[in-house]
Amino acid sequence: MKKKLTIDVCFSPSLYPVYHRDDCIVVVIDILRATSAMCTAFHNGVEKMIPVASLEEAAEYKKQGFLVGAERNGIALEGFDFGNSPYSYMTDKIKGQTIVISTTNGTQAIEVARNASQVVIGAFTNITALCAWLSEQNKNIILLCSGWKNKFNLEDTLFAGAVSQRLLKNSKFNYGDAALSVSFLYQQAETNPYKFIRNSSHAERLAALGLKHDIKYCLALDKTDIIPVLEGKYLVKLS
Amino acid sequence: MKKKLTIDVCFSPSLYPVYHRDDCIVVVIDILRATSAMCTAFHNGVEKMIPVASLEEAAEYKKQGFLVGAERNGIALEGFDFGNSPYSYMTDKIKGQTIVISTTNGTQAIEVARNASQVVIGAFTNITALCAWLSEQNKNIILLCSGWKNKFNLEDTLFAGAVSQRLLKNSKFNYGDAALSVSFLYQQAETNPYKFIRNSSHAERLAALGLKHDIKYCLALDKTDIIPVLEGKYLVKLS
Repeated sequence: MKKKLTIDVCFSPSLYPVYHRDDCIVVVIDILRATSAMCTAFHNGVEKMIPVASLEEAAEYKKQGFLVGAERNGIALEGFDFGNSPYSYMTDKIKGQTIVISTTNGTQAIEVARNASQVVIGAFTNITALCAWLSEQNKNIILLCSGWKNKFNLEDTLFAGAVSQRLLKNSKFNYGDAALSVSFLYQQAETNPYKFIRNSSHAERLAALGLKHDIKYCLALDKTDIIPVLEGKYLVKLS
Repeated sequence: MKKKLTIDVCFSPSLYPVYHRDDCIVVVIDILRATSAMCTAFHNGVEKMIPVASLEEAAEYKKQGFLVGAERNGIALEGFDFGNSPYSYMTDKIKGQTIVISTTNGTQAIEVARNASQVVIGAFTNITALCAWLSEQNKNIILLCSGWKNKFNLEDTLFAGAVSQRLLKNSKFNYGDAALSVSFLYQQAETNPYKFIRNSSHAERLAALGLKHDIKYCLALDKTDIIPVLEGKYLVKLS
């Protein structure tokens, strides 16, 4: 019998070393809002993105004349061009540009996974394209939730559940405990994810900042069929 | 409004530093089978247990004449007195004794949480006593799942869900994303936890070792009302 491929879920960037395998595809997930915003940026014509973990690097790129998105704790930082609201990337000025982005959680997750075989960006907004592509690969998959400051969060977990549920229908994948658990969890949220997550800690944080429309956008399916993929220091469109 | 107490869930000993707060009660969970076995040992009259992370320490205690339980990868190690099957602790020879125990995951989890305000041992076999006691304390709670070699596992998560579900009925507790998620997961498993977890990775591992009866025992509720608690290097009965 051919050995099945595994789908694993890692709930925190700081737990990633426990899950790392050189031959894995890592899907980085930061639903509210970094990976959702990245998908939006590519859909709106950005050419490349440079995800950076620290604000020092972001500021350095800004000095060099790049367009830079920078967010911490849900708030777009002054002196930069964008935060991580997907809406801020719906603009013609990003077309054909290389833009830099640094966020509280998502860009940290990309950083820790950098040495995986392939690192792609997942969000509800590109879920169907992502799952179709993952199904065609013959590699083990790690769904890496960015979480909140290295703690578990609900919205990234639900997305991991949505992906697991779709992939487990494909018999070439085997489920571990985590993929099984998150797909059960997603079953309960599926009919109304917004209702399910509106009491989550980060949704509350964003709602307090007046960003409910961001949450709704980030939970909407299939706004794009682009899958951003890491190539060296750049995120580019997977071709 | 009085600030509510938090219930958090940590899915891996190696993630514990992210969750640690000096003032927390930590519930260490290793359902299959270390914490279930510890509850059984105290119920059968053991006086104290010394949990140790390494086999070197376990062997050292054995040399000194202690009764010692030692398990790795589901298997009781040769040259010691017990593994971590609860059934092996249902014996008169432990009555009044101080026994040492080292297991694949559970004793590692105790080790990382050692500096918390209080460390107690949780299992389905003492869940009602544990939840009643936790409800009476005025402290934040961390449910620490031992997992499997620092990865997420299903059975510890389900127990965290069972505890969260019970405690969240008490309005003095606030739920974070993790407690909310695990209690939803437990809802789905509640009517038949054995059926739910029998395909989990560790249940499969134990079943392959002929230990299905251990799994069933470890999922049974309220075999004891003893709560083991860490005092210095010893686990003793909480009085």
